[in-house]
Amino acid sequence: MSTIEDHDTIRAVLWRGERLRLLDQRKLPFVEDYVDCTDAADVAQAIRDLVVRGAPAIGISAAWGVVLAAQRGREAVDVALPMLRASRPTAVNLMWALDRMQRCIAEGADAAELEREAERIQDEDLAANRHMGQLGASLLGNNVGVLTHCNTGSLATAGYGTALGVIRAGCSLGKIERVFAGETRPWLQGARLTMWELMRDGIPATLVSDSAAAHLMGSGQVHWIIVGADRIAANGDVANKIGTYQLAIVARHHGVKFMVVAPSSTVDMATASGIEIEIEMRDPDELLAHAGQRTVVEGAQAWNPVFDVTPASLIDAIVTERGVIENPNDQRMQALFA
Amino acid sequence: MSTIEDHDTIRAVLWRGERLRLLDQRKLPFVEDYVDCTDAADVAQAIRDLVVRGAPAIGISAAWGVVLAAQRGREAVDVALPMLRASRPTAVNLMWALDRMQRCIAEGADAAELEREAERIQDEDLAANRHMGQLGASLLGNNVGVLTHCNTGSLATAGYGTALGVIRAGCSLGKIERVFAGETRPWLQGARLTMWELMRDGIPATLVSDSAAAHLMGSGQVHWIIVGADRIAANGDVANKIGTYQLAIVARHHGVKFMVVAPSSTVDMATASGIEIEIEMRDPDELLAHAGQRTVVEGAQAWNPVFDVTPASLIDAIVTERGVIENPNDQRMQALFA
Repeated sequence: MSTIEDHDTIRAVLWRGERLRLLDQRKLPFVEDYVDCTDAADVAQAIRDLVVRGAPAIGISAAWGVVLAAQRGREAVDVALPMLRASRPTAVNLMWALDRMQRCIAEGADAAELEREAERIQDEDLAANRHMGQLGASLLGNNVGVLTHCNTGSLATAGYGTALGVIRAGCSLGKIERVFAGETRPWLQGARLTMWELMRDGIPATLVSDSAAAHLMGSGQVHWIIVGADRIAANGDVANKIGTYQLAIVARHHGVKFMVVAPSSTVDMATASGIEIEIEMRDPDELLAHAGQRTVVEGAQAWNPVFDVTPASLIDAIVTERGVIENPNDQRMQALFA
Repeated sequence: MSTIEDHDTIRAVLWRGERLRLLDQRKLPFVEDYVDCTDAADVAQAIRDLVVRGAPAIGISAAWGVVLAAQRGREAVDVALPMLRASRPTAVNLMWALDRMQRCIAEGADAAELEREAERIQDEDLAANRHMGQLGASLLGNNVGVLTHCNTGSLATAGYGTALGVIRAGCSLGKIERVFAGETRPWLQGARLTMWELMRDGIPATLVSDSAAAHLMGSGQVHWIIVGADRIAANGDVANKIGTYQLAIVARHHGVKFMVVAPSSTVDMATASGIEIEIEMRDPDELLAHAGQRTVVEGAQAWNPVFDVTPASLIDAIVTERGVIENPNDQRMQALFA
């Protein structure tokens, strides 16, 4: 049997020279379709519409969006930057990638040089994920049960994944016995995407409803919650997919450990704490319909925040490619990210 | 504007002499269809298939199932009783209603007398709900935000509802400002049924994903969690819809109060604590498909417990028609239910 690494051939963001090819994550797992972006507006639209999602993959896609703009000239770049920046508000990797491209532009980079910078962003993300996989897996004991939330795998990154990278590494090392994936309403990233990635890799995986997490932890089958992040504040507070915060509360209640895995591009030292993080509200219709069929009476209201903030005090470890911070706080964050 | 009481005309369980008519809750809120049961096997099937659901409504339906059997003779009753008893394992109201019918049978009741007993069970449930509504609402402050889970309304009972009865009463009294309903995966009782009942009554209601509960509580919009119960053990532990336990943990974390509302038929003094309660596992397909469309890759496993147990220590009040138990424990339960 081949190793798990061999299986991970999923790539969600594909650069094709004069266009960006994005695996359409709205249609997975049953249809593998691609959306071709030929300019930055296409990329911004794809980010808004969740063709591509996952904080690192959004950042990488935005960087390629700048390259597409640069191929059309300086004016297109000036239009593209604010448009891409506004495409989604919570994930800071988007801002980080655009800042990095903007610095190159300020230094006079041409389209070809910007293309190399975007490629570096993408390659560094994959390398960071592989490194974090090893760092995170080293924290696990043996015969461990893991619960993850949302999708943090190859689909959400340049490849391998953040939290799912740690899970892949932990499985390769034979430390993980079973992975539980929360379905992650309303968009079902866990059910549709994470289960797909895990099963492609031959990892023993079980889907649970988001509501079953406490009962699952109470049953003793889970020792670690491992999740990604969309933004990490200077004090170690973590914004991530809605539902993460209650997993952290419930984990602490049961003595289950809680690990956040994200590249350093997710760390936002300019944001003092989680209170300052803007939480994206999405269309209530995401809750009012399923698979295109309405499930709730007409006229009903829904409240659909898609992220929440987990305070640092509920987090046992933040894993980045720069190193691991256990029991994160201001001082420890400062020491690694100042 | 008419009062909220005037609106509550929903009846899920309708006795029609020689058949039992059940509102098909699988098809709500868009199709109001009925299933006619002409014998006890039909009723057992309807309970298993969730045509009728909600602990009190299941108990009432089973009582009518015994009447249908009795109309065919003693032999049919002997077959019906164990069949109905096995139709769902967790809700104790089912066992309670069948015990009550069985006592009448042991005392030599004929079909007509059994019919009157089933009618009493149904009428008493409605009266209990109205009384619990007042008792529960008296615990609420003013301008309260409430979060409820699953459906505990007219659809789950003889009418008015348990937790939803308290919410109806609290709204009538002007104490409740807004009701949030958790969608309640996988069967979406909150999204499909509770939102329908609340909107029919003109109660300001907002749907949230089950995962958003902690973020909602953190935002200060919710002061009480109000839920029903499928079984209450002698120490005050409560089995209820999956997700209830984590709501209780998260509520305690935020200083939000937690109320359980259920008729005394839900109390099972023969079960010492929640550990002894059998938790029903349902078909994994409930998690693997939405609205008839599969959402998860073929071959995927899912773990689908449909109830969990909330320990008494996380409950602020259990409201029954016999009275309210605050901070429930063995002694207080014993005092009211010995």
